[in-house]
Amino acid sequence: MTGKIPDGPRRGRRREEPTMAAIARLAGVSAPTVSRVLNGRSGVASETRRQVAALLREHGYRRPSAADPAPSVEVVFYGLESHLAVSILRGVEEVVRQQDFAVGFTDVLSRAVTQHSWAEQLLARRPVGVIAAHSYFTAQEYAVLAAGGIPLVALDPSGVPPDAVPSVGAANWSGGIAAARHLLELGHRRIAVIGGPARSLIARARLEACRAALDAAGVPLEERFLRTGRFFFEDGLEFGRDLLTSPDPPTAVLCGNDLQALGVYEAARQAGLTIPDDLSVVGFDDLEYTRWCGPPMTTVRQPFEEMGATAATLVLAFAAGEPPSQTRVELPTTLVIRASTGPPPRH
Amino acid sequence: MTGKIPDGPRRGRRREEPTMAAIARLAGVSAPTVSRVLNGRSGVASETRRQVAALLREHGYRRPSAADPAPSVEVVFYGLESHLAVSILRGVEEVVRQQDFAVGFTDVLSRAVTQHSWAEQLLARRPVGVIAAHSYFTAQEYAVLAAGGIPLVALDPSGVPPDAVPSVGAANWSGGIAAARHLLELGHRRIAVIGGPARSLIARARLEACRAALDAAGVPLEERFLRTGRFFFEDGLEFGRDLLTSPDPPTAVLCGNDLQALGVYEAARQAGLTIPDDLSVVGFDDLEYTRWCGPPMTTVRQPFEEMGATAATLVLAFAAGEPPSQTRVELPTTLVIRASTGPPPRH
Repeated sequence: MTGKIPDGPRRGRRREEPTMAAIARLAGVSAPTVSRVLNGRSGVASETRRQVAALLREHGYRRPSAADPAPSVEVVFYGLESHLAVSILRGVEEVVRQQDFAVGFTDVLSRAVTQHSWAEQLLARRPVGVIAAHSYFTAQEYAVLAAGGIPLVALDPSGVPPDAVPSVGAANWSGGIAAARHLLELGHRRIAVIGGPARSLIARARLEACRAALDAAGVPLEERFLRTGRFFFEDGLEFGRDLLTSPDPPTAVLCGNDLQALGVYEAARQAGLTIPDDLSVVGFDDLEYTRWCGPPMTTVRQPFEEMGATAATLVLAFAAGEPPSQTRVELPTTLVIRASTGPPPRH
Repeated sequence: MTGKIPDGPRRGRRREEPTMAAIARLAGVSAPTVSRVLNGRSGVASETRRQVAALLREHGYRRPSAADPAPSVEVVFYGLESHLAVSILRGVEEVVRQQDFAVGFTDVLSRAVTQHSWAEQLLARRPVGVIAAHSYFTAQEYAVLAAGGIPLVALDPSGVPPDAVPSVGAANWSGGIAAARHLLELGHRRIAVIGGPARSLIARARLEACRAALDAAGVPLEERFLRTGRFFFEDGLEFGRDLLTSPDPPTAVLCGNDLQALGVYEAARQAGLTIPDDLSVVGFDDLEYTRWCGPPMTTVRQPFEEMGATAATLVLAFAAGEPPSQTRVELPTTLVIRASTGPPPRH
């Protein structure tokens, strides 16, 4: 089924296919009525709609103008960000739909093998604008997109784009401060920090904010309590195991993102430790299922849906030839306190 | 930022904007070279590309033909299915991209308030085809879409569409059998079943398959071990609490989907029970994060990406005027054994 694909629908209308007028004659209604049915408009009796629809189906009616679709705003993801993709797409859709544009989806890691690069394919589809929802584009790729003459806005759940590219992000630094202060207020003093990749500016912002908050509280981050790695579950698991089996383990872990925090959860479970009685854990992102993990996770929320909506508003402003004065928008983060944090264990 | 939206980019080119030829003159290159840069094609020295791109930016070049975008295949979701959306979108993209079409995203539950229904908006965008990735359309909505003359294929991760609509699903019955047999083989006899909504045919298929497998093993499903509800975390939590606090609790729970299973995880955690030592739990779907929950979940895998690819292949065949002979495709499910199932506790 997934193998051979027939020729595309761009080719001409076949001679034997019925026109809208012919369908109207058969149904005993006006052509505008058939058009209303075709366009899903109201104002047609449901019995009439049923009859017209049946005739359209029976006679294999196809729109003549499938080659004149609506312009779209394309959102480009990279495999890693898929956890965030739906929230972002929703936010984009909310704004874009108001202009009757479509929302397009591209995953750079798609396995489709074609003769063209994804950027070339994207430009060939002539979107009204492009939202780059990840940070792993090379400067060259940004240049290719920018040079395409199609407005580009970067959305940085996990990175910061080149300066020239308008972008929407979240307040990573403030989020890191809030997370660290929360643990300090609970009474923790042996606090470990797991950071993201060193080359990621947002990972750096979160980590350095945690360090600053700990310093300010007179509880400087000890080198033995610091780990940095990828934003993956597996890295959280490895660092978690490592930290929890040390002679004088931390009572709390601040993680660079939720996936790392889930890895620490698993490390705690394997070590027979209970969260939050034996160990407090804080994530970053507020992925949907952090509410459902055991226990529900305390984490710093990035407003992905709002970020998507803001990026869409920006890109449409550029597309309309009305570039906004502010081309870097930072939305607030929020500490969401759930059940993975509590006072440190007494020993 | 998210408030007022400027007029759309469909309006005409502004008089003062430069042409491609003007940019070429300024850069000292040929117009085809500017075109190569604009279209992201290779064969341009990187320094030249940089210069041309800078000039394009500086002079505010915009493509004249943003109103001639590529046709798209639109995938329609309903809020609930967002957990599955990305896998499905990837599968669709993989196929659709090979014809240089775009992949469109629509969430019926989007909060955008407009004068038009989502179906009307969708038809107005004139996609090549529509994939309905959920089961909560009304018959009327299916009729509106079908009457639109745009090929429609239903994808049923959680439902079965009307007979007339070509569709792609997974083998729910076989999945239910495999899940139940797995628990029986581990030695469980007190097995509870949590099913999805009674009106959902796929929920019924899973539940009745579990019942059949238990019957066949001479361990009929007891009424006190049966619950049905929505496919939500909250329902799994409520039923799980209820089952686990009964006088003679089950040693294993077969769930209608992964979200319900996560709810049972939480009920077990709150009751101080360890999975799988005290209780075995089986989900259904294999959502990405079932690998990351504590412990990693044994579940029945629906091949969402492949389902999306198959639906795309079907819808493109219809769009090309070559309807396939088979209009109901059922893909296999697979039991994925992880760490949430084990032998029953000895008492």
